[in-house]
Amino acid sequence: MSGEDAPAQQQNAEEQKQQQQQQETKTPAESPKTESKPDPPPSSASTEAAAAADTPAPAEEKAPEEDTFSYRALVLTGYGGYDKVKLQVKKGKPALKSGEVMVRVKMCGLNFADLMARQGLYDRLPSPPVTPGMECSGIIEAVGEDVTDRKVGDKVLVLNRSGMWQEVVVVATTHTFLIPEGMSFEEAAALPVNYITAYLMLFDFGHLRPNQSVLIHMAAGGVGIAATQLCKTVNDVTLFGTASASKHEVISQGGVTHPIDYRTRDYVEEIRKISPKGLDIVLDPLGGSDTHKGYNLLKPMGKLISYGAANMLAGQKKNLFAVAKTWYQQFSVHTLSLIQGNRSVCGFHLGYLDSETELIAQAMAAVMDLYRQGKIKPRIDSTYHLEQVGDAMRRMQERNNIGKIILTTEPMKEEEKKEEAKKDEEKKKEDKKKDDKKKEDKKKDDAKKEEKKEEKKKEEAKKDDKKAEEKKEETKKEEN
Amino acid sequence: MSGEDAPAQQQNAEEQKQQQQQQETKTPAESPKTESKPDPPPSSASTEAAAAADTPAPAEEKAPEEDTFSYRALVLTGYGGYDKVKLQVKKGKPALKSGEVMVRVKMCGLNFADLMARQGLYDRLPSPPVTPGMECSGIIEAVGEDVTDRKVGDKVLVLNRSGMWQEVVVVATTHTFLIPEGMSFEEAAALPVNYITAYLMLFDFGHLRPNQSVLIHMAAGGVGIAATQLCKTVNDVTLFGTASASKHEVISQGGVTHPIDYRTRDYVEEIRKISPKGLDIVLDPLGGSDTHKGYNLLKPMGKLISYGAANMLAGQKKNLFAVAKTWYQQFSVHTLSLIQGNRSVCGFHLGYLDSETELIAQAMAAVMDLYRQGKIKPRIDSTYHLEQVGDAMRRMQERNNIGKIILTTEPMKEEEKKEEAKKDEEKKKEDKKKDDKKKEDKKKDDAKKEEKKEEKKKEEAKKDDKKAEEKKEETKKEEN
Repeated sequence: MSGEDAPAQQQNAEEQKQQQQQQETKTPAESPKTESKPDPPPSSASTEAAAAADTPAPAEEKAPEEDTFSYRALVLTGYGGYDKVKLQVKKGKPALKSGEVMVRVKMCGLNFADLMARQGLYDRLPSPPVTPGMECSGIIEAVGEDVTDRKVGDKVLVLNRSGMWQEVVVVATTHTFLIPEGMSFEEAAALPVNYITAYLMLFDFGHLRPNQSVLIHMAAGGVGIAATQLCKTVNDVTLFGTASASKHEVISQGGVTHPIDYRTRDYVEEIRKISPKGLDIVLDPLGGSDTHKGYNLLKPMGKLISYGAANMLAGQKKNLFAVAKTWYQQFSVHTLSLIQGNRSVCGFHLGYLDSETELIAQAMAAVMDLYRQGKIKPRIDSTYHLEQVGDAMRRMQERNNIGKIILTTEPMKEEEKKEEAKKDEEKKKEDKKKDDKKKEDKKKDDAKKEEKKEEKKKEEAKKDDKKAEEKKEETKKEEN
Repeated sequence: MSGEDAPAQQQNAEEQKQQQQQQETKTPAESPKTESKPDPPPSSASTEAAAAADTPAPAEEKAPEEDTFSYRALVLTGYGGYDKVKLQVKKGKPALKSGEVMVRVKMCGLNFADLMARQGLYDRLPSPPVTPGMECSGIIEAVGEDVTDRKVGDKVLVLNRSGMWQEVVVVATTHTFLIPEGMSFEEAAALPVNYITAYLMLFDFGHLRPNQSVLIHMAAGGVGIAATQLCKTVNDVTLFGTASASKHEVISQGGVTHPIDYRTRDYVEEIRKISPKGLDIVLDPLGGSDTHKGYNLLKPMGKLISYGAANMLAGQKKNLFAVAKTWYQQFSVHTLSLIQGNRSVCGFHLGYLDSETELIAQAMAAVMDLYRQGKIKPRIDSTYHLEQVGDAMRRMQERNNIGKIILTTEPMKEEEKKEEAKKDEEKKKEDKKKDDKKKEDKKKDDAKKEEKKEEKKKEEAKKDDKKAEEKKEETKKEEN
């Protein structure tokens, strides 16, 4: 489970090992027996699994034989571009430990941290091969020993550190939450990460109260929309939201008082015009220089809440320049500056609240309550099949979504698959073109650099000669 | 007005000028005509003023003539030890501007920031000569034009950036607050700085909730006791409080769950024993290495609230070593560390909330309400006459107080004054002895350093000779 975005940091070997061990206990016992199934046609096994997903298994139905049990799973096979997440088939029925449940997954949520993770920039995802995904919704298919608060057939949503993008997941019951009446599986998969992140940031760190002002970056994103809805539950909150102009109508309707097109306007200037004294709360998923700007926008008793480094993401593959720049510009603050400004700087990331089950449960209960009261409602931007995970990630990466992007475990129809294959080919060609151009540009650049280096070397050689002569003369003088 | 303590920073010339201008508008128009009255016997003027203070002027009574009006005032004459704050008599009736009131002061509160200010370590006090003091209580003696919410005879407490340690103050009505029924002038003078500081820290930045845990340093100090009482208004809060052992009984009775003697115990270890997961809130008035310790004690979603640098104060005069060390060790944090820990670092100082009248008024209303409900009650440690301000400051500096130290404008009786003079002599002698010893130690140290320097120089000279020889040999070789 995780927030919207994540810091770039390589985990150390020890931690990785621990994580992998944990991961192994969460995923099926026989998970290593996976088969790569990157392309259609689908295996009979996957169709079978899909059929099972369509009709929730009643409590009495016997479980399929352990050796014939299989299910589709997205697997990150290595760090890199969109194609590094592959659809595979896992075989073998997951073993359930005490306190665990098995969930037949219907929908999964996509988060910024998943994009970071694919590029190797998110240290809470165990190393590949691994199934990403921090949230999903589905139906309980089996319960382990000592499970009393869940039963087969319960509709639940799941929040977990990773491993949610597959048809079957096994998790501790503490990571599952009953879906309230009237909430769709899509909404349920869209809810946990975005709404708990926004809730804890605004109401715990932020202590949002009536008449305050809030800045929400990426206001059309998952956390952005969740935060907007949560702000609207408090009277007379003034909301500044950054998003590209095409999304302004939607976010205005959603509750953003002042939408700002960050691409054509200086948002700091725009905010100062309307609110010269500054802001009470700044939610910052960007990092780098934007954190500095956010800090300087704070009123006395203002809170800056940093929850990511989206500025590190500049393309489908890791962009070392963007990473380094964001890292270099990352905000650091001295307590004396905080004291003189009466300010607060907070860091939030749901991915590091893994073990805080009570805290999460409380926040979830509050969020569910708001849903039941009709005060919040996840906005689904689009739903993709597991086979289309690349397109889904691209949509988020290129900031084309308004609201949540969902993956469904429902298999694609044959005709859809054919069309998809065609599109894929085209996209690959386009990507290749782009890559080729980049490579060519790089070559040119390198050649230029090489030339410059040569020149420099020659100059230095000249200087060296000169120095040597000077030295000789000096020593002569000394001897004289 | 100000919090418990303040950062060391020299203000720039421009700011100083502005502050002086502001100060001039706040203190009497003729304030430059002051007379130094460091020693008894008191002038008849001061006795007159004192008499006036004893019997609040009824609304009908005519104001004394402008040229005979005079009142006693404490004045910081320059940065340094306790004797830099002198009792003087100011002459001339203060002019009242629109929206201002004149208050006949009964009691004044002493704060840590006043100690910092005397050493030149608090940039919110205008430069000397200036009257310090951020809070007082008294009776309104005159109101300016357009004042409708206060009338002559109203009992008020006053919170202001400076200038409160005198018998007569002139302030904007927005800086005055009506004293509730049953509250003594001592309590009223003890309340504003400590309780508003503790209130905003715990409930705005800290978002304190039931079942949480809080660390309060200097738990027997003014803010410490206020924070303890405010924590007790929330259910099941576990309170860790540091104080020397002799104060433990009192702070335990006040509500501290676990008193820790920081002089003989490692408080981090003690806290970890009882609360292995750490703390929800750390209030840090110390700065330096204690801020680092506090940060590392935080639970996920924990808040560190830094509100001073008391570690900078190590003696009655500015201790450059303590200042430099505290400054050097001052805490600075990177957002990525905050994100990974889900932590918040806040800075608070009431002195920089000068112009936030609405915010202060809200907090004051909440605090007054708690007082009326009997949930809070300032604990007065001791009350000193203005003449004894040095002793009062010494008591706070040496951390001998439990609760608030108050200055009263009531003049000392003659016999008290004689005793005081004797004590003063003794204290001065003691201080001189201490100073002499320090100087001697320093001389010895310097002599040692000098010796070492000499040795080093000799060694370096030797090295240089050697190098020169080596060089000669090298050049010979080259020529061969």
